[in-house]
Amino acid sequence: MRILVVNPNTDEGMTRALAGRARAVCPAEAEIEAATVPFGPTLLSRRRDVAVAGAAVLALLAERAGTMAAAVIGAFADPGLEAAREVLGVPVTGLCEASVLTACQLGARIGLMLGSRPMVPAVEERLRACGVSERVCGIETPAPGSRPGSPDELVAAFGALARGLVERAGAEVIVLGGGRLIGFAPRFAEALPVPVLDSVDCAVLQAHALARLQPRKATVGSFGSPPPARSKGLSGGLARLFADGT
Amino acid sequence: MRILVVNPNTDEGMTRALAGRARAVCPAEAEIEAATVPFGPTLLSRRRDVAVAGAAVLALLAERAGTMAAAVIGAFADPGLEAAREVLGVPVTGLCEASVLTACQLGARIGLMLGSRPMVPAVEERLRACGVSERVCGIETPAPGSRPGSPDELVAAFGALARGLVERAGAEVIVLGGGRLIGFAPRFAEALPVPVLDSVDCAVLQAHALARLQPRKATVGSFGSPPPARSKGLSGGLARLFADGT
Amino acid sequence: MRILVVNPNTDEGMTRALAGRARAVCPAEAEIEAATVPFGPTLLSRRRDVAVAGAAVLALLAERAGTMAAAVIGAFADPGLEAAREVLGVPVTGLCEASVLTACQLGARIGLMLGSRPMVPAVEERLRACGVSERVCGIETPAPGSRPGSPDELVAAFGALARGLVERAGAEVIVLGGGRLIGFAPRFAEALPVPVLDSVDCAVLQAHALARLQPRKATVGSFGSPPPARSKGLSGGLARLFADGT
Amino acid sequence: MRILVVNPNTDEGMTRALAGRARAVCPAEAEIEAATVPFGPTLLSRRRDVAVAGAAVLALLAERAGTMAAAVIGAFADPGLEAAREVLGVPVTGLCEASVLTACQLGARIGLMLGSRPMVPAVEERLRACGVSERVCGIETPAPGSRPGSPDELVAAFGALARGLVERAGAEVIVLGGGRLIGFAPRFAEALPVPVLDSVDCAVLQAHALARLQPRKATVGSFGSPPPARSKGLSGGLARLFADGT
Amino acid sequence: MRILVVNPNTDEGMTRALAGRARAVCPAEAEIEAATVPFGPTLLSRRRDVAVAGAAVLALLAERAGTMAAAVIGAFADPGLEAAREVLGVPVTGLCEASVLTACQLGARIGLMLGSRPMVPAVEERLRACGVSERVCGIETPAPGSRPGSPDELVAAFGALARGLVERAGAEVIVLGGGRLIGFAPRFAEALPVPVLDSVDCAVLQAHALARLQPRKATVGSFGSPPPARSKGLSGGLARLFADGT
Amino acid sequence: MRILVVNPNTDEGMTRALAGRARAVCPAEAEIEAATVPFGPTLLSRRRDVAVAGAAVLALLAERAGTMAAAVIGAFADPGLEAAREVLGVPVTGLCEASVLTACQLGARIGLMLGSRPMVPAVEERLRACGVSERVCGIETPAPGSRPGSPDELVAAFGALARGLVERAGAEVIVLGGGRLIGFAPRFAEALPVPVLDSVDCAVLQAHALARLQPRKATVGSFGSPPPARSKGLSGGLARLFADGT
Repeated sequence: MRILVVNPNTDEGMTRALAGRARAVCPAEAEIEAATVPFGPTLLSRRRDVAVAGAAVLALLAERAGTMAAAVIGAFADPGLEAAREVLGVPVTGLCEASVLTACQLGARIGLMLGSRPMVPAVEERLRACGVSERVCGIETPAPGSRPGSPDELVAAFGALARGLVERAGAEVIVLGGGRLIGFAPRFAEALPVPVLDSVDCAVLQAHALARLQPRKATVGSFGSPPPARSKGLSGGLARLFADGT
Repeated sequence: MRILVVNPNTDEGMTRALAGRARAVCPAEAEIEAATVPFGPTLLSRRRDVAVAGAAVLALLAERAGTMAAAVIGAFADPGLEAAREVLGVPVTGLCEASVLTACQLGARIGLMLGSRPMVPAVEERLRACGVSERVCGIETPAPGSRPGSPDELVAAFGALARGLVERAGAEVIVLGGGRLIGFAPRFAEALPVPVLDSVDCAVLQAHALARLQPRKATVGSFGSPPPARSKGLSGGLARLFADGT
Repeated sequence: MRILVVNPNTDEGMTRALAGRARAVCPAEAEIEAATVPFGPTLLSRRRDVAVAGAAVLALLAERAGTMAAAVIGAFADPGLEAAREVLGVPVTGLCEASVLTACQLGARIGLMLGSRPMVPAVEERLRACGVSERVCGIETPAPGSRPGSPDELVAAFGALARGLVERAGAEVIVLGGGRLIGFAPRFAEALPVPVLDSVDCAVLQAHALARLQPRKATVGSFGSPPPARSKGLSGGLARLFADGT
Repeated sequence: MRILVVNPNTDEGMTRALAGRARAVCPAEAEIEAATVPFGPTLLSRRRDVAVAGAAVLALLAERAGTMAAAVIGAFADPGLEAAREVLGVPVTGLCEASVLTACQLGARIGLMLGSRPMVPAVEERLRACGVSERVCGIETPAPGSRPGSPDELVAAFGALARGLVERAGAEVIVLGGGRLIGFAPRFAEALPVPVLDSVDCAVLQAHALARLQPRKATVGSFGSPPPARSKGLSGGLARLFADGT
Repeated sequence: MRILVVNPNTDEGMTRALAGRARAVCPAEAEIEAATVPFGPTLLSRRRDVAVAGAAVLALLAERAGTMAAAVIGAFADPGLEAAREVLGVPVTGLCEASVLTACQLGARIGLMLGSRPMVPAVEERLRACGVSERVCGIETPAPGSRPGSPDELVAAFGALARGLVERAGAEVIVLGGGRLIGFAPRFAEALPVPVLDSVDCAVLQAHALARLQPRKATVGSFGSPPPARSKGLSGGLARLFADGT
Repeated sequence: MRILVVNPNTDEGMTRALAGRARAVCPAEAEIEAATVPFGPTLLSRRRDVAVAGAAVLALLAERAGTMAAAVIGAFADPGLEAAREVLGVPVTGLCEASVLTACQLGARIGLMLGSRPMVPAVEERLRACGVSERVCGIETPAPGSRPGSPDELVAAFGALARGLVERAGAEVIVLGGGRLIGFAPRFAEALPVPVLDSVDCAVLQAHALARLQPRKATVGSFGSPPPARSKGLSGGLARLFADGT
């Protein structure tokens, strides 16, 4: 069973970090393959970046269609997630959706830690579109401009924010959403009185669970395969996406 | 990794059915153990039954504490689910919650098939408490008194209801919630244009995913371990539950 | 007209306190009878306790069926409330639901005072299931471990929290939900600029109002009488509950 | 204990009908006084009518301030309800709010019967403002232009609509909201498998319950007494309302 | 194209302020006419005032029916707005509704500035009835009793509150709702890092947009013209409103 | 005042249709310029198409930045709308959002007509993210495969669906959302008893209203200008978008 982890950022270091974390959490029966989108911003931190990354994710998936049992979109804004579900024949998960749905099973009130403050309203819209926004009791981000240097500084800075979510907002589980926080869940869990989830872990394990279910591809509804369609000015994966339908 | 599947019904045949389905869907690395609650109704179909089953589930879990990596509560009303999360040190999933959260990742609108019409409002309250009720577009049950005899009759009767959820309510994924429907998902999937989920499959796979995450036990909040407490008139597991705290 | 006040705690002192308050608030035409559940925790303060108390409430009500015009479930988590409505032929009220619905008629924004912090998320789930959670603007509890000794200390400690709900959260009416607060509403009302409700008062008066309406028992839906059903390992009231249907 | 039943319609026959129903349902300890607003439409059936009736209710209450322990606003749109709560020192209830809050304690899903189709969206807005709209599963009105003549015809016509709410929308309790339906609840209850509530009964009993609580008047918030204020062009009760503050 | 700006306060100075602001913002093709309601409170600040103003707005509109292409109700509580839509054949807008709907297009989270603290719950009910309450992240008012004298003091006092909405509540757009704030938007915008909207500007421009659409008058539903109806004790515009139907 | 109407489809005929409709509805003081995105599907009808169109809209806007007072995104899924608001210094509107917000001011319940059934869940997610989904009472699309030929056939086919929204779902205003329906609002309005809105009209008039407000560009929050950022594999407008920040 192969799970494709798509990095919607064009930063290759992030692809390696995602792959490493995915391999660490995944059951032995699954094989992780990681890939970087062919174009777009180096690191997503704004609405502009997410909009371009959505198209880039589709371009990559069109190139890889048919080679995996499930896919993971490895950025917290879930760029292109629903469109990917439409064009692929296998399940797709996203970091935001998968981690919040996982967290729903571990705590009544969920606290989110994000890397970029301007992304907060966009994540809130995403949660509302998912229909689970009532379960999220707070979202914290580091102050604009703060740049923790060492891992210890990062744990100290984000740890104080997470503790505030527990003590003031009543969070019963913390989700780590920012790319810089990959792999830090165990360190946070030591210092906090509630479970702490790495969103990459959650998305990979949800993808594995969905792959085992082997759900049939819908032929109707918004996730039914789209027909081939005329397009203009596209090349590579995106051109194929429209020429072939899926 | 051992996963305990708790049958909140006292019917042993249902325990075997749950165990069989759980073993069929679970990854090889996990071992399924199934157990029947020590007291309560044979088959849950009303609010009365669920209230008693909630206490029975706790009684069983208190007996088995410390022997598993995760637990599954094997009835669609999720009896005792939140209380179980409080008293156990490991993750617990329930059929309703786990299947709806799984379905959120496969379709925008979710249709539910239940076995008993009087349970519909209770399930709706449960969905609202979970915070995902907006994603469920319809709930269908067989007409009161109808009793499909053969598997073919059952598939025909429920299949027509499921098709109505797809065509009239716009369901993009169907969840099979009733005990009688265990194991029938593949037959329904053949006949329907959307994915069909067995709620037992979903709850077992979610329990496996949560067990792999090895989340720390909360020490604060509504899922923090309760302290020992005085009680009266209890025996067996329930007495131990209060004497020991967990 | 007899109103049965059920104490879901096994503490007899609490039964006397409930009975005293109920008799103080009830119109002369109604007679209050109070009873203690036959088993369960001494004082409810966690999800575990509520789950067991739900079954205990049903056991008691099955013993007393046919002897009252309405029943009150005397703990703020409303243990077994919906199941009680299914099995009894007369109206049943609960402290949480009744006091919040009463408060809706006295203020636009409702503040709740509870005795136990870990119960907050469970009460929030209950409010969401009721559908009135938008009206509640805040829930306060004393700091874990704080134990006001004298009544004056209790009024001082809780009074400061209630004032915060009024001044910072904009509460226009305060509901006293914790067992320790029974009978203190007049003292709080002196010190606060908004109405203060004792949840026992509210539940008894709502039970009286419903009893006067003499609503017919539903024969369909989730509150229609359940049929007799097979069960295992039950004795006393719970055994009768399944043997007789109601 | 005197309860004032305000008829927001200027039709005196309706005042007598309200008074009769209120006296029939009210405990002996309460005395019912009924009064008709001094100006406005004969019978409320549109938004225009409700807007004028809101001011008329205030005019009447200003004349009667200090003479009652509670007031009931006797039209289903609850005209002037919140403003009445601001200006009066005693509790006030309304037919819509009181009956839906009562029904919440008798069924999970509430069906409403109204007299005028164009009022449906206005009632829906009122339910949403109250925060309980999720509990209402359907609203039915007679076809525009239909005019059942005899009581038997009325029961037949509305009974068929109510049965549809039960069978198709899953209503577990029916609220009779239209003025023409006052006093008919027992006849509907015979013919339906669920409880049926007369909204006048509910509002009178809620007013009685609130009066027994003797809640203190708020001095802050949106229901705190308004200060005297300058006004223009008003006479009678309305002029006094502004001159005196309450 | 004539747009009628209705002042629901009886203060003529406010009428001049509304007219001045409306003329400043309106396209040249529209002509602004302003009018003061014939009776009611000088300045609306409580629920009592809004209830009376609703009837006064209808009285004025009945006098002016047929003379305008659209109408604006110039107080933030939108008194009589829905009833005005029913009786008039042309579009009507209100300050609260129009400014929040406009703000939805400029920021994800909306902060409101109001003049009177007791109006906050009433405005929240209005937002909930509109269905857009989730978009509003906070409402601020000056402390009761504070009376900024000069414009500079007013900008300083309200500016600090608005800054708090941006910094602590995450507001991305600020709506100025209080009558005293008319015309101050540019001064606030200089001092704040987000757009600032004058609610009068928004309501006038929305009225202009709706007038250009020339929507047909509904003949069904809650905004269909009401029929003539009998009434009592009314004179002037209100009497005509019922005698003529519209 | 120049308003740029962006066609997110690459079909030039659609650009001409959008431009024609925009010029017909716009006040004389505004000048309409229409432009076609440089790449993407010919006509948007699926989630895949919308994802690619979102990036294409940004590419076009980056080319045109600084040349307009407001922009309109001319497809009902509002592709790239929020990202456009982030990168542009002037207001941007979208067909779905603008028409639903306009419709909120004309009817209590809104019915939508769309061209493609698979887009329904995506539009519902968009409405939920906007926070106005409660106002929409129904969405209708032509049966899959149906292809009305002449304008008369189109009016007949869609008219029957719209009438059903009015009669069965209680719609009080109808929004025409599909590209094929541009310009048909007057014909529908003749045949329906409620107002009918062309979504292009609404978006152009909202853009004009916002342009007149001349709101300042946010410097904080999710619509504050993004900083320049590194990217890979982009050319033309998209490359500039990241190189320049806006």
